[in-house]
Amino acid sequence: MLRTHTCGELRIEHINQTVILCGWVQGVRNKGALIWIDLRDRYGITQITIESENTASEIVMLARELGREFVIKVSGKVSERYSKTDKLPTGEIEIYPQAIEILNRALTPPFTIEDETDGGDELRMKYRYLDLRRSEVRTKLQLRHQVAKATRSFLDTHDFIEVETPVLIKSTPEGARDFVVPSRMNQGQFYALPQSPQTFKQLLMVAGFDRYYQIVKCFRDEDLRADRQPEFTQIDCEMSFIEQEDILNMFEGLVKHLFQEVKNVVIEKLPRITYKEAMDNYGSDKPDTRFGMQFCYLKDENINVVDGKNFVVFDTAESVIAINVSGAASYTRKQLDELTEWVKDSKRGMGGLIYMRCENGTYKSSVDKFYASEDLQQWADCCHSKEGDLILVLSGKKTKVQKAMGDLRLLMGERLGLRDKNIFSPLWVIDFPLLEFNEEDGRYYAMHHPFTSPKPEDIALLESNPGAVRANAYDMVINGVEVGGGSIRIYNKELQSRMFDLLGFSKEEAQNQFGFLMSAFEFGAPPHGGLAFGFDRLCSLFGGSESIRDYIAFPKNNSGRDVMIDAPSVIDEKQLKELGIKI
Amino acid sequence: MLRTHTCGELRIEHINQTVILCGWVQGVRNKGALIWIDLRDRYGITQITIESENTASEIVMLARELGREFVIKVSGKVSERYSKTDKLPTGEIEIYPQAIEILNRALTPPFTIEDETDGGDELRMKYRYLDLRRSEVRTKLQLRHQVAKATRSFLDTHDFIEVETPVLIKSTPEGARDFVVPSRMNQGQFYALPQSPQTFKQLLMVAGFDRYYQIVKCFRDEDLRADRQPEFTQIDCEMSFIEQEDILNMFEGLVKHLFQEVKNVVIEKLPRITYKEAMDNYGSDKPDTRFGMQFCYLKDENINVVDGKNFVVFDTAESVIAINVSGAASYTRKQLDELTEWVKDSKRGMGGLIYMRCENGTYKSSVDKFYASEDLQQWADCCHSKEGDLILVLSGKKTKVQKAMGDLRLLMGERLGLRDKNIFSPLWVIDFPLLEFNEEDGRYYAMHHPFTSPKPEDIALLESNPGAVRANAYDMVINGVEVGGGSIRIYNKELQSRMFDLLGFSKEEAQNQFGFLMSAFEFGAPPHGGLAFGFDRLCSLFGGSESIRDYIAFPKNNSGRDVMIDAPSVIDEKQLKELGIKI
Repeated sequence: MLRTHTCGELRIEHINQTVILCGWVQGVRNKGALIWIDLRDRYGITQITIESENTASEIVMLARELGREFVIKVSGKVSERYSKTDKLPTGEIEIYPQAIEILNRALTPPFTIEDETDGGDELRMKYRYLDLRRSEVRTKLQLRHQVAKATRSFLDTHDFIEVETPVLIKSTPEGARDFVVPSRMNQGQFYALPQSPQTFKQLLMVAGFDRYYQIVKCFRDEDLRADRQPEFTQIDCEMSFIEQEDILNMFEGLVKHLFQEVKNVVIEKLPRITYKEAMDNYGSDKPDTRFGMQFCYLKDENINVVDGKNFVVFDTAESVIAINVSGAASYTRKQLDELTEWVKDSKRGMGGLIYMRCENGTYKSSVDKFYASEDLQQWADCCHSKEGDLILVLSGKKTKVQKAMGDLRLLMGERLGLRDKNIFSPLWVIDFPLLEFNEEDGRYYAMHHPFTSPKPEDIALLESNPGAVRANAYDMVINGVEVGGGSIRIYNKELQSRMFDLLGFSKEEAQNQFGFLMSAFEFGAPPHGGLAFGFDRLCSLFGGSESIRDYIAFPKNNSGRDVMIDAPSVIDEKQLKELGIKI
Repeated sequence: MLRTHTCGELRIEHINQTVILCGWVQGVRNKGALIWIDLRDRYGITQITIESENTASEIVMLARELGREFVIKVSGKVSERYSKTDKLPTGEIEIYPQAIEILNRALTPPFTIEDETDGGDELRMKYRYLDLRRSEVRTKLQLRHQVAKATRSFLDTHDFIEVETPVLIKSTPEGARDFVVPSRMNQGQFYALPQSPQTFKQLLMVAGFDRYYQIVKCFRDEDLRADRQPEFTQIDCEMSFIEQEDILNMFEGLVKHLFQEVKNVVIEKLPRITYKEAMDNYGSDKPDTRFGMQFCYLKDENINVVDGKNFVVFDTAESVIAINVSGAASYTRKQLDELTEWVKDSKRGMGGLIYMRCENGTYKSSVDKFYASEDLQQWADCCHSKEGDLILVLSGKKTKVQKAMGDLRLLMGERLGLRDKNIFSPLWVIDFPLLEFNEEDGRYYAMHHPFTSPKPEDIALLESNPGAVRANAYDMVINGVEVGGGSIRIYNKELQSRMFDLLGFSKEEAQNQFGFLMSAFEFGAPPHGGLAFGFDRLCSLFGGSESIRDYIAFPKNNSGRDVMIDAPSVIDEKQLKELGIKI
């Protein structure tokens, strides 16, 4: 090794030892008589101190020549630091060098290698290898490594076998768009990159592997957003001879283990709510339960405290839903006008926002001319409002209002500081609908995927009312983020075939695309189910970050480009010819 | 859980417990009064015993209906087995069922699910999920999991960080052929799938990650052989601030750890031989050192015990090389004729094979009319032959003879039973040439890859005699298989640029393909190096198998097809249109 120690490990007990360190020059302070070099590596920073008068002149000269990010090798003696600092773990010592060697020079980096950098996003991505030197970024990838390690250790102790499934598979039109790979040896044919190893892990269950896992790259050729990447990583798991309850318990165990190992946080038993409860109370199937502010229904199938007061908007609405925002009665007219514009924008599409303040023992609403004090008292009762609270009310078509109110709830939670990234509130959302009706296509789509099993008690509804069939499907949600999801699978050929029918597959299409799976079901398939966690997302959640990009060593930008290596790129005519394709 | 125990865990101490097992019917023996069911899962086999007279009739009827590979759930009492067997870990017990439930039926499988199956290769690949049920195959994938686990545990304790590098990267014409992926968002442009994460791991070193590893899928669009797959897995590693010695020690440590953990075999310090020694003594850069039979030179630069006896073949040959095959003097004329044909075939291309027997205290050779007894005594001295040995001699152009003799040595080792798959003989081959001259193209190619550093003492030769430059490159070889290889890398822009020149890259090509790496070298690159192990191959070696295919859950056949899912396949016209490509 070129070094005896790292830049993060020397302490007071190493004093008087002669050591060799290697690393990058974080900075040099030259005060003439004294020169200090901060030497950095992955493990920390150590101060090198040069007393010009007591040091060989070639060392002094070389030290003066050093620039930021030079790679150097320093040998010297560990000494007690003159002015100790507790900001660094190595803050009690410094090195007096006996030799310094420049291992490599560096141009001035295009942005500062500091936690708070002056580099913009694009510049940092182009020079990602410099960005990764920042401890801020490096720590995130170290956290990722820790999460992977803790995941493996948990699953290993629970008899899961890691099996690698293929990357070059077959394209299927169902679901998101595939990336495809032209085959040279089978011209005119294409492989696809997997969106998930779903069918392979099911085949592993048919093969008797019983408990499978893999931390695996998956691919989707979709238009990108901040939290989406064309290639992403899943913790992919499947179990046999289980029921939904077993899966929930096992992976609740995994997540508790991860919180314990990685964050040193103890998580209690995860609450479970149904999809319907989630929509009714939070307007979202991935509710942020770090705070309450659940929906209060002023008008719905079972309640109505708004009709008959000549307020046509409410009288004609299917649903009137309120949230009670604690302590927000002081919201100004201007702030409320802003909120009104926000719910009216294209994303929410509400007609307007009604509010009511509980202030000074009275109720003041924006619809006072329709509703008397005792009417408003009813609203306050519904919402369990108290002095100082603000009620926000939306009305219209129920599903639309729920969604808009869900957004508004999150916004108000944000504004009131209720979404603390150091608080973790995981839960299970269960009993998802099996199917979603798409108005545009006039057909049903699988809400999860076509292999999810309906609840046995709902199978009778498959013909009469497919939209009402609930699935044995579940999501794990933490802080409003869906970190994982899965289902109990169909393991019977007839039911699988019926599902494909319902999803509008012809017999031939089903056979052509998933014949191998249906065939496998005929040779003794066990009851099985599983789930997958979004690994990038889980890591970013542990790290308290919104974007997954920081947790990926070499991410792509929103156009799917790696700006560092400049990919994708044009390829040789010769390559195209060998593949038998034309642009 | 549907079960309380697995089919592999019940022992004498479980007697009288009521248990529930799930699994596959391995077989049913129906003797009328007694019916035995062998119930199988991943963990083992347990015998279910039904005494018709003492068992509810519906259980008896159901048991008679069971076919091979039915999936059933059995509850019953654990009893001491009537006729115990030590062939099964569960051989001391049997289950008397109180209930049997058929979880899923099975068609008769197309081949028997036994260690010795009647299924041919193609059939087993088509129904790979059934093939994987065979304990023979399952054990191989379990071994793979163990190797991965032991690899991670070793590298984790040595401060290596697992970092995932991208799968969608950029195509470079150097090296093997890339698989490419058309980009929809950047039409006319392509990603490539990585042949290895080489440049990314080097960038991680520039980023200061210091010790990196990844067990990672790599891709090569090459024509396939038994031991090649279009997608394969590497244990990929890189370290900074090290010298070659450090890499050799670290990964020698890894391999010793793996042998200890996975095979319970203690490996001594690995011998190191140079590339030149390997070629001179074994005619191969991946010598099988489980046995000796090293080359003996009868004619070479420094020796000549054959010329001047009017045997023109030897007189005009550049080299005459022999091996001494211990105890093979009894080889018949017919056997020797066979060997002669074998060395003359197109793969070896030798003119013929000369032999000499050391038998009954005399030497008998196939060239007795040219060589007297005292001449042959010289041969025997060169080869340290003793009574009962056979000397085999080839002559011609040195490099060609070395290669052919290397093959012949392996063949003889095989015939003499010297290549025992339970013996492991690992070694390092070091000091590889930096470059290989290709006669066809009239240019040099990198023997390892363009990022490998020349030995500092040989740099002067780069201009004068490039072919003589040795690299800081090393391979780990076990039993004649190259299981891993790597090098100390170039970390200096000028030297890297000079390498690209030597390899015939124009400045523009070099910049276009590897500009990001050369740019990275300008911002403070540390000295670094690493290696990669072929993971599939390493697993097959541990398992004592020649083919890597058995160690891959879902392999492709020699045409690159997955015959189970039938991939690659044609894709929709719509997909092609979105990608902007035509067939």
